[in-house]
Amino acid sequence: MAEQPNTEAAARHVRFVLSNTSHPGNIGSSARAIRTMGFTRLCLVSPASFPHIDAHVMAAGADDVLEAACRFDSLESAIGDCSLVLGATARLRGVALEELLPAEAARRVVDAAAHGREVAYVFGNETSGLSNDEIKLCHAAVHIPSDPGYSSLNLSQAVQVLAYEARMAALAGTPPRKGNTDEPATAAELEGFFEHLATTLHDIEFHKGRSETTIMQRLRRLFLRAHPDQRELRVLRGILADAQRMARLAHHDRTD
Amino acid sequence: MAEQPNTEAAARHVRFVLSNTSHPGNIGSSARAIRTMGFTRLCLVSPASFPHIDAHVMAAGADDVLEAACRFDSLESAIGDCSLVLGATARLRGVALEELLPAEAARRVVDAAAHGREVAYVFGNETSGLSNDEIKLCHAAVHIPSDPGYSSLNLSQAVQVLAYEARMAALAGTPPRKGNTDEPATAAELEGFFEHLATTLHDIEFHKGRSETTIMQRLRRLFLRAHPDQRELRVLRGILADAQRMARLAHHDRTD
Repeated sequence: MAEQPNTEAAARHVRFVLSNTSHPGNIGSSARAIRTMGFTRLCLVSPASFPHIDAHVMAAGADDVLEAACRFDSLESAIGDCSLVLGATARLRGVALEELLPAEAARRVVDAAAHGREVAYVFGNETSGLSNDEIKLCHAAVHIPSDPGYSSLNLSQAVQVLAYEARMAALAGTPPRKGNTDEPATAAELEGFFEHLATTLHDIEFHKGRSETTIMQRLRRLFLRAHPDQRELRVLRGILADAQRMARLAHHDRTD
Repeated sequence: MAEQPNTEAAARHVRFVLSNTSHPGNIGSSARAIRTMGFTRLCLVSPASFPHIDAHVMAAGADDVLEAACRFDSLESAIGDCSLVLGATARLRGVALEELLPAEAARRVVDAAAHGREVAYVFGNETSGLSNDEIKLCHAAVHIPSDPGYSSLNLSQAVQVLAYEARMAALAGTPPRKGNTDEPATAAELEGFFEHLATTLHDIEFHKGRSETTIMQRLRRLFLRAHPDQRELRVLRGILADAQRMARLAHHDRTD
């Protein structure tokens, strides 16, 4: 069976990022899992032990994926060029992030990849999952709706399920395009905007006893849901710059 | 979240049968895999080594599933009371059997279970898969459409994918949980926000030769895509109010 363009695009543009993995065997099992679903791009952020013989044993023939794995010191650097970053979460922990089922996540992933955009699925440590700082770098959460009474999927099993859904979505074809045709902002551009927004809120003295963290989480969730494109980010940053200019003038007034 | 009748029926009537499994670790991983998806019934046909410490290590807390596992000397006896028997196959090998994708198989499984019928998913040996004699006992084949170039899913990964689809089918009918639980803003509230935004852009002198209409259209499209809730609109309007306050102070400075 010849592979379709959508599976090729998915293979080219989708990476699986394992962050702070404790057991090298799980890295090997994950390499095998993604390889069976037609994917080859594995990224490792600060693995506890790698390379390691256990990884190669568990990879069971998917050694090419292991050998081509990219290594990073921070999640931020592993996903900087991605326009869609999805964090695998066992449950939501008070972090305000859009939550997707695996099939819906897969549709968005395949659509993005079909348009040549870089996409990352991100998986945290086996025991503790993604840290709050890691989750903040994600644009949406993917949740495998496991049994609430026993929800602990092995890391490579979670990788397998999400890779399986991505493959099913790629084989099903690309969904029709949505209204937005400009280039979507990358993760790094979005983070730049959020930093600018946070600074501006300080400059205009928005936080008056309000929790800065809560407000920024809320605003992140709102803007990430909208999937802003690059032109929209430029408009938003232009507004922030003018608000800052007004704040500087206002401040000048009071300190004269 | 309370489990639904469909997941209860599936847990009661669906069994996962592992036939001629070589590695006890795979039995443990499979126990964990089905448990995460709300299933508990594991049947073992002539396992090479069981009980075995590796099985318990890999079960990682799903020991109750292992301890309750039923043992059989033949696949025939393990599935005798089932009205639907689905064999997991990596590929069809000239055996004339209906071949289903995991999602379609899951719909049939959940439907049968909801009517109180016994159902079995059957998995063969890690290396050789289901024998022709075993396949003959199946009513249909389930095929995970893996990459033809590397189709070898680990046994427990295949169990995980089929159990996942069975759970998704059982949960279907429940509206998916979204991240956002606050009341969505009404059309009137959104228009109030857009008016406030337009006024603020004037106050902070954002339109410097730029087309106001185009900018507002762009911002409307962006915010409407995000479907803001009432609380989010209050935060946004708070930011606008502070930017306006700064603009008033700045203006005051210049006209003094």
